[in-house]
Amino acid sequence: MKQALVLYGATDLGASEFSADILWATEFKVPDPVLFVQIEGRKVLFASPLEVERARKEANVDEVLLYSVIRGEQEKQEHQLVSYLKMEGVTHVTIPESLRYSLASLLSNHFEISAVRSPFGKERSVKREDELQEIEGAQRAVERAVAKGIQLVRESEIRGDELWHASYDHPLTSNDLRSCIDGDLYIKGYLGIDSIVACGAQAADPHCRGEGLLRPYQPIVLDIFPRSLTSLYFADQTRTVFKGEPSAMVKKMYMAVLDAQEQACMLIRDGAPTNDVMQCAVNILEKNSFPTSLTEGAVYGFIHGLGHGVGLEIHEAPSVGRSGEIFQEGMVVTVEPGLYYGKEIVAEIGTIPIGGIRIEDMVVVTKDGCRNLTQFPKSFEEMVL
Amino acid sequence: MKQALVLYGATDLGASEFSADILWATEFKVPDPVLFVQIEGRKVLFASPLEVERARKEANVDEVLLYSVIRGEQEKQEHQLVSYLKMEGVTHVTIPESLRYSLASLLSNHFEISAVRSPFGKERSVKREDELQEIEGAQRAVERAVAKGIQLVRESEIRGDELWHASYDHPLTSNDLRSCIDGDLYIKGYLGIDSIVACGAQAADPHCRGEGLLRPYQPIVLDIFPRSLTSLYFADQTRTVFKGEPSAMVKKMYMAVLDAQEQACMLIRDGAPTNDVMQCAVNILEKNSFPTSLTEGAVYGFIHGLGHGVGLEIHEAPSVGRSGEIFQEGMVVTVEPGLYYGKEIVAEIGTIPIGGIRIEDMVVVTKDGCRNLTQFPKSFEEMVL
Repeated sequence: MKQALVLYGATDLGASEFSADILWATEFKVPDPVLFVQIEGRKVLFASPLEVERARKEANVDEVLLYSVIRGEQEKQEHQLVSYLKMEGVTHVTIPESLRYSLASLLSNHFEISAVRSPFGKERSVKREDELQEIEGAQRAVERAVAKGIQLVRESEIRGDELWHASYDHPLTSNDLRSCIDGDLYIKGYLGIDSIVACGAQAADPHCRGEGLLRPYQPIVLDIFPRSLTSLYFADQTRTVFKGEPSAMVKKMYMAVLDAQEQACMLIRDGAPTNDVMQCAVNILEKNSFPTSLTEGAVYGFIHGLGHGVGLEIHEAPSVGRSGEIFQEGMVVTVEPGLYYGKEIVAEIGTIPIGGIRIEDMVVVTKDGCRNLTQFPKSFEEMVL
Repeated sequence: MKQALVLYGATDLGASEFSADILWATEFKVPDPVLFVQIEGRKVLFASPLEVERARKEANVDEVLLYSVIRGEQEKQEHQLVSYLKMEGVTHVTIPESLRYSLASLLSNHFEISAVRSPFGKERSVKREDELQEIEGAQRAVERAVAKGIQLVRESEIRGDELWHASYDHPLTSNDLRSCIDGDLYIKGYLGIDSIVACGAQAADPHCRGEGLLRPYQPIVLDIFPRSLTSLYFADQTRTVFKGEPSAMVKKMYMAVLDAQEQACMLIRDGAPTNDVMQCAVNILEKNSFPTSLTEGAVYGFIHGLGHGVGLEIHEAPSVGRSGEIFQEGMVVTVEPGLYYGKEIVAEIGTIPIGGIRIEDMVVVTKDGCRNLTQFPKSFEEMVL
């Protein structure tokens, strides 16, 4: 039995069939999909005439083969791959579960197929030193940009239910704050993609980008996860800030989430089960009497996983939830509990108002614990601007 | 027989399994993959608890269903889909060829499967008025930004084999010019992704991004294809410029490419075969004695297709090459012949130096011809700065 791994995809930002695995394995940026084959550790790339010369110069592979010429002749390319694999004596092919069906079904006509979630996902989840540096660089950029955004809110003045800043001829909006943050990131070479600046009821929806006026005394969730425009590595950070002290119940929510966030971080170490860390956060939020419901018509509380790996994808392995994965030294993960109430909830603890709180750091797992890659403040006092 | 279309993917910029089809069909932006089902014109989205409320507010679909809760339980979600389709009495399922293998093979265990290239690709290729406006808006942004970049080169001074501009303490580089162009785009809400500013030998490689010093008398290829950060529609334009008049042979190359570009444009109209338009460009370049070779070890000349559709993907249907497609009123396509010589070639016409030329406009097909969406100059005289 001779085995080959087959991947297919492009590696440029915004390409439709983006493959973080191919980018990771080849370090080659290419806007249209290419075929990648690995046989017994030997890496081969099939490239079109348009890319073949550049691939030979830039791709970190053992060989670059030219494949057939005319765009649109996908089938020919795929048959060329089958011939190549047969010539090499391959009998078994490993593919990612996400491989395009047309290619996977062709391969399955000729070879034994095993589909795995992400062939390099496990290797990619443990970061090399140079990858860590890219991610930390992105994280520093996030912190500078968010500090700038927070300064804007701090300098603003509460007038009625609006925030006014001397540099703007209108009350401050989510867009103003997002432009300030994303603009600073872009100048430094990072792209904020759908950066979240969500206030009040919008903060109750974890993926709501936020728009319209910012309000005093309400949570403003700043979830910033930019990507390096050169290396394509991500960073990820969330802070929830307030212009003016919020209600006692919202402060309670903040303190519960912060407690869950900090205690979960303390459980992370090489060998720890991710599920336990998730459960720790769930328990603390419950202990603080903030209810969670995940049934149709009543989705509220802590409604997402605790965190995820960060690298060439914003969400990659490991998943810190109920997936049963184990932390390994060198993994980079977010720790981001949150509470979300899209409607007022009458609970044991009292009436919980509409709104949301999320606090997120990014850490790297070490032998005995974890190192927090996020240096940004998160105490309640420092978040009241 | 009852039929369903099944799609799977995310719709945010930079998402790994980006689906332009889902974005087009739902107008819903979502960072993690969702399931999209269409049965007899009725559109249904399966969303996680994290997205379900937002999907109900924002997605242009008939129904949003909640699917199982915990991240990482992909299989459960997929089985939920199978149950749903059976309940609806579905017997045949259409999927995109690019659908992830795990989902496609599960569906094929329960239903008759037909895989098509891009289920909405053909519909998407003919643009609605609002889509045209998005694309034209992006094109206007390209033109403003490229004009700024060209101004920078125009204002610079030739000193030896370098270009010097008063605002820089070093000779002008590809990066300087790219930053000038991309920075202007970003301020206007567009993202230049790997914008090409490639000079001299780098211009001989169509997808080389370009780096290092810009040189006088050499072709500088400016291929700018940004994406709206809000709507995700692209535009695409290439100009080849020179600081100082190039050699007579390079001018000849430019004139041949321009002739091919303009004559190809004149053949485009509703009902015309794309292959004929491609062949027209091939013929003109041949007639001008510029040779093309696409064999291993000797890839040069006109080495790519003449053009491609532009919309929510930078390369989408139709392909203007040898795919046999037919132009239809409302299609937006690029027309971008090029000549590339990575080594000196001794040809009938004389010795062709190392370098590349590409000229690209974006047009919309009309009943009787096409309307050029690109208003930027392209005469040789105007490209010598």
